[in-house]
Amino acid sequence: MSKKTTIYDIAKKLNITAATVSRALNNNPKISETTRALVLKTAAKMNYEQNKLALALKSGKSFNVGVIVPRIDSNFFASVIRGIEEELHPEGYHVIICQTHDQKSQELTNVNSLLNAQVDGILMSISNANDPNKPENKKDINSAENDIFNNILKKNVPLIFFDRKKDIKGVSSVIIDDFKGAYDATQHLIDQGKKRIAHLSNNREIAIFNNRYLGYKQALLDNDFEFDENLVINCFSKVDEGRKVAKKLLEMKEPPDAIFSVSDFSALGAIQEILEQGYKIPEDISVVGFSNEPFTKFMELSITSVDQSPTEMGRIVAKVFLEEVNNDSKIKSEKHVVLSPELMIRKSSLSPAVTA
Amino acid sequence: MSKKTTIYDIAKKLNITAATVSRALNNNPKISETTRALVLKTAAKMNYEQNKLALALKSGKSFNVGVIVPRIDSNFFASVIRGIEEELHPEGYHVIICQTHDQKSQELTNVNSLLNAQVDGILMSISNANDPNKPENKKDINSAENDIFNNILKKNVPLIFFDRKKDIKGVSSVIIDDFKGAYDATQHLIDQGKKRIAHLSNNREIAIFNNRYLGYKQALLDNDFEFDENLVINCFSKVDEGRKVAKKLLEMKEPPDAIFSVSDFSALGAIQEILEQGYKIPEDISVVGFSNEPFTKFMELSITSVDQSPTEMGRIVAKVFLEEVNNDSKIKSEKHVVLSPELMIRKSSLSPAVTA
Repeated sequence: MSKKTTIYDIAKKLNITAATVSRALNNNPKISETTRALVLKTAAKMNYEQNKLALALKSGKSFNVGVIVPRIDSNFFASVIRGIEEELHPEGYHVIICQTHDQKSQELTNVNSLLNAQVDGILMSISNANDPNKPENKKDINSAENDIFNNILKKNVPLIFFDRKKDIKGVSSVIIDDFKGAYDATQHLIDQGKKRIAHLSNNREIAIFNNRYLGYKQALLDNDFEFDENLVINCFSKVDEGRKVAKKLLEMKEPPDAIFSVSDFSALGAIQEILEQGYKIPEDISVVGFSNEPFTKFMELSITSVDQSPTEMGRIVAKVFLEEVNNDSKIKSEKHVVLSPELMIRKSSLSPAVTA
Repeated sequence: MSKKTTIYDIAKKLNITAATVSRALNNNPKISETTRALVLKTAAKMNYEQNKLALALKSGKSFNVGVIVPRIDSNFFASVIRGIEEELHPEGYHVIICQTHDQKSQELTNVNSLLNAQVDGILMSISNANDPNKPENKKDINSAENDIFNNILKKNVPLIFFDRKKDIKGVSSVIIDDFKGAYDATQHLIDQGKKRIAHLSNNREIAIFNNRYLGYKQALLDNDFEFDENLVINCFSKVDEGRKVAKKLLEMKEPPDAIFSVSDFSALGAIQEILEQGYKIPEDISVVGFSNEPFTKFMELSITSVDQSPTEMGRIVAKVFLEEVNNDSKIKSEKHVVLSPELMIRKSSLSPAVTA
């Protein structure tokens, strides 16, 4: 059997780069029609078969990049993915997506699936800790997770974390300044005259949630507020969970006059419960969420939230990946990018008394 | 080099099915701890390496299934995918997702990527026709699309369409009865006393949009309404597009008193424009959307919409795939499932006059 033609052979023949050949074969709009025609003609002449699996086995390149997210039905993650695609498509890469539903075990199988599909890189936002409904052995899971991350790195597949990260040597990350986002949100509530600000938190083993908690706490302390641990309640990022927690808060002897939630979804649930119990928003209780999901803007009672520029985050994640995958030197370096969030002030927290 | 151990060898050794071995290796919760432990022990003894690529090359099985959707940031598609995952995970399959952003050219490269990643099946909702901003040669694209669908079928990779389908011999599909959904929505507006009902349509080369148009038209005719083509306007499924079209409708000499939109997103845009211009909903103008996106329920002015049971649709798509992939007989059969939609009546269309 004669040796199969690769894109490298075509590139050599035409005296252009293999990347250009790949882009031409993948209908990348950046490649001129003339070049594309030339590449296609040459490829046909040389009996090139565009079988990327074969190519993967030969060159180690599949031009597929895997993205793992906790869930696809959140505007935040969908927008990060859009940013990644916008940046990678012109380079001839395709994006394949897996979701974990926030389960560690699913995360592990996703990584395996992507490695077996021969992806050229894995860009991921790690899933939340163990599902409380399925008490798994935490130590085992954590050790399995570390094994699999090491496995990715051993295979020289670039791994990059975004938003929800773990500190692993050699792994780059792109995150937002969650501390600042939470600090700004809490300061805004204080500026609106609020005195007793509750915090809907989430699993603080995940850095983003811990940093939002710390930002909230620091804003209180900087304003000489008393920090009351009873006003901090953990809650999944779900509408129903937000309702439940709001109910608990309203049953307190001295209910809060404001809520800062780490999630727009639980903030929405809290708002529904508060309104149903006959309280006024923001007069009686202000509510601020996090992530700037589209519905926060669409609501008639629009919800104040923290914008994380997710598309921009995706573009940067993709750029970090491209740097790593195109880095031929043996010296690998970690890159850590921290983006600044922006508070979007809307009706759910803007006291008429203050604005008047 | 000695022959590598496969899951079939382990299955034979233990006198269980290969599927059970696969499930045990993939931590499927349906497998008992005893069986899992036995499989893991035997696999270790037999030097089994769980490398699915190797397995794919030997057995033609990767246990990865590709899902292609126009966009992941729609509750409809995200929920279909959730249904697919719920049904396939217990069978040991993993789901990898690609989005097309409604571009045909992207659809073609996605199919190639998934085939090269050696998926065991492709479940897809086809993308909308050509992007009007990138006038591509429609005939070329259609012929390229047919080529690629034939390519999938030639490789004996099961291909199943859901929601947005094409009629291709040998390809099964799962859709909802869009005609009925649209008919019911229009009849509801007529029952509310509306006389001049506009229709926000979309590219009617896609069957779902054409069937919704036909359902709307038939309901008008069955009620002896005059059908006015000027009240039918094409519009992308986007909030901004809905605003623009509503503006046009309100500028008419005789504006409509109701709008039935094929999309919740354009319905939301229309609502924003109508309210901004000082009209009352539903008193002056009623609005009905399609898809039952979560925000339609969350809004204070909740939006009437057509529910398509997307999770159920996903489960059925997965079941059709499993039937095909497990069908060893040479006789292949097409299966066409049509689900019935449900009208969710909410504030945006429920006339107080009628309810009183």
